[in-house]
Amino acid sequence: MTLAPKSKSKAALSSLVDRMQDLVSGDLASVEHLLATRAASPISIIPDLSGYIVSAGGERLRPLITLISAHAVGKATPATHALAAAVEFIHTATLLHDDVVDESALRRGKPAAKTIWGNKPSILVGDFRFARAFNLLVETNSLDILNRLATASTIIAEGEVRQLAAMATRDLPTEEYLAIVEAKTGALFEAAAETGALSAGGDAHAPALATYGKNLGLAFQIIDDALDYGGTTSVIGKLVGDDFREGKITLPVIIARRRGSDEDRAFWDRALNPATQEDSDLAHAVHLIRATGAAEATVTEAEAYAGLAKGALRTLPASPYRDALEDLADFCVSRAY
Amino acid sequence: MTLAPKSKSKAALSSLVDRMQDLVSGDLASVEHLLATRAASPISIIPDLSGYIVSAGGERLRPLITLISAHAVGKATPATHALAAAVEFIHTATLLHDDVVDESALRRGKPAAKTIWGNKPSILVGDFRFARAFNLLVETNSLDILNRLATASTIIAEGEVRQLAAMATRDLPTEEYLAIVEAKTGALFEAAAETGALSAGGDAHAPALATYGKNLGLAFQIIDDALDYGGTTSVIGKLVGDDFREGKITLPVIIARRRGSDEDRAFWDRALNPATQEDSDLAHAVHLIRATGAAEATVTEAEAYAGLAKGALRTLPASPYRDALEDLADFCVSRAY
Repeated sequence: MTLAPKSKSKAALSSLVDRMQDLVSGDLASVEHLLATRAASPISIIPDLSGYIVSAGGERLRPLITLISAHAVGKATPATHALAAAVEFIHTATLLHDDVVDESALRRGKPAAKTIWGNKPSILVGDFRFARAFNLLVETNSLDILNRLATASTIIAEGEVRQLAAMATRDLPTEEYLAIVEAKTGALFEAAAETGALSAGGDAHAPALATYGKNLGLAFQIIDDALDYGGTTSVIGKLVGDDFREGKITLPVIIARRRGSDEDRAFWDRALNPATQEDSDLAHAVHLIRATGAAEATVTEAEAYAGLAKGALRTLPASPYRDALEDLADFCVSRAY
Repeated sequence: MTLAPKSKSKAALSSLVDRMQDLVSGDLASVEHLLATRAASPISIIPDLSGYIVSAGGERLRPLITLISAHAVGKATPATHALAAAVEFIHTATLLHDDVVDESALRRGKPAAKTIWGNKPSILVGDFRFARAFNLLVETNSLDILNRLATASTIIAEGEVRQLAAMATRDLPTEEYLAIVEAKTGALFEAAAETGALSAGGDAHAPALATYGKNLGLAFQIIDDALDYGGTTSVIGKLVGDDFREGKITLPVIIARRRGSDEDRAFWDRALNPATQEDSDLAHAVHLIRATGAAEATVTEAEAYAGLAKGALRTLPASPYRDALEDLADFCVSRAY
């Protein structure tokens, strides 16, 4: 088995994100300005580490969802810009803390911030960015929007704790996996889309966009979890096997374990324990996931959520913004092929 | 040298806190209710760990400052209760993260939460409590109050990062030490007192109470740092030497180092490096701090800030609440004797 870079999907993401960025280029410039200026601190390690995580965070997916949701149902305002920046501040704060909790040395193939600066600054700069997010949210002048982001943040933390607890569970139910994904990824996508609408005066469409965001987040994370094992082909995007090495139980594993033999289950139980994992285990894990059809089944599950996301958009007025949100749902799934 | 339990000061704190609690007992019951109910989560480790840190947090000093400040200049409202609970949520979130960052196994002589549950849940439950604080702050219905607490939270994180950086500095300037203390402890005391006034309609007195809180926080932390080496007597309250074992540079050390011989400075440089510290070093450190008069000088510094705190109260109307705030400033310093 050879694992080649997932260049096609990467190019597809760049192309879609480019189009999304073009759609809202003026707004995005305002958001980038906020991201740069509000990370400022006289304590140099804070902007240094912030700059690293912000550039590593990459494609600004969540702020784009906020901005495009706003345009799809109303008029983006300075409040929308502050909100979109706050969403990215929260996202990067959780990335910093996740890296410490996950014990992963790399993020998207680059050294994680904590690998360079250490765990302690990563925890504290995460706290700093999280607090700054709420300063920015004050600028939306909406206690309702602020409350939704605070609630999303509690749900993310709950999801992460739940994921920790799940790592000790060999036989994780699919429902528990989905609840974790909905909390740790779906909640912020949901809040990003919903509050984007609220910030633009599109309150009537906010519930539909909340549904869109939640299901998009589920599809996105499930595909991410499939890509950790190379998706349905041997082509890979991010460093394969991060979840595996950490002993995280994700959908491809749940399905492969359920469909496998007793011998397979014994393999999963041993290999997903970092203490007893061997170097050759990842290749065998990818083999089992392909052989049992677990990779396809995982992508099928994600497709269902992408379909629900698109379905939620039907009540929105037709516009290039609605089209972009639809394309994003399709794209999320296409990454796995 | 014998180190006996600091029973006298502990009793004095209990007595003052009892009086403060009596003054606002109805309000405090509402705050305790919020502290208990808003920590709820279906993920059992979250309330378990929360309950532990809330009880370990102890005397509810910061919520008491908020409640008594409110009464001193106006009328405490449900907004004041939500605010006081939020202040304690933020405080306990920072405790959880501090324990991970400080690498201390104990907090106030009890095992730190992370010693029982591990670093990862401590980070995540800290995040959960921090986010919950902002849900509670929404209930104050005041974006101004919320913004001040968000800003205080960024300043706390900055102070903690600054303290990390200072640990590599052998020759830490007093001004840098004070700036760290003002950020990591003064900022939340300041916000607790100031927003207490704002929540009670006492806006005209809010700046005075902000000054009170900031200087009280400075006095409180400086005395805490003196107590880490047993204060001015051999009597101790918390487990002596936590800061020393972690290599934290605090005021007693700065003064003892400055006043000491070259040999003393060589001692401090070696002993404050956890890698080269020896078991017998703490006793010698306490000796040097006493012999150079650094303990008294530290307490004198704290007294100055306590004086500034009390001075700020002069413009407030006379009341049992103002008296309690004054007593608190006196008490902070008396702990060191």
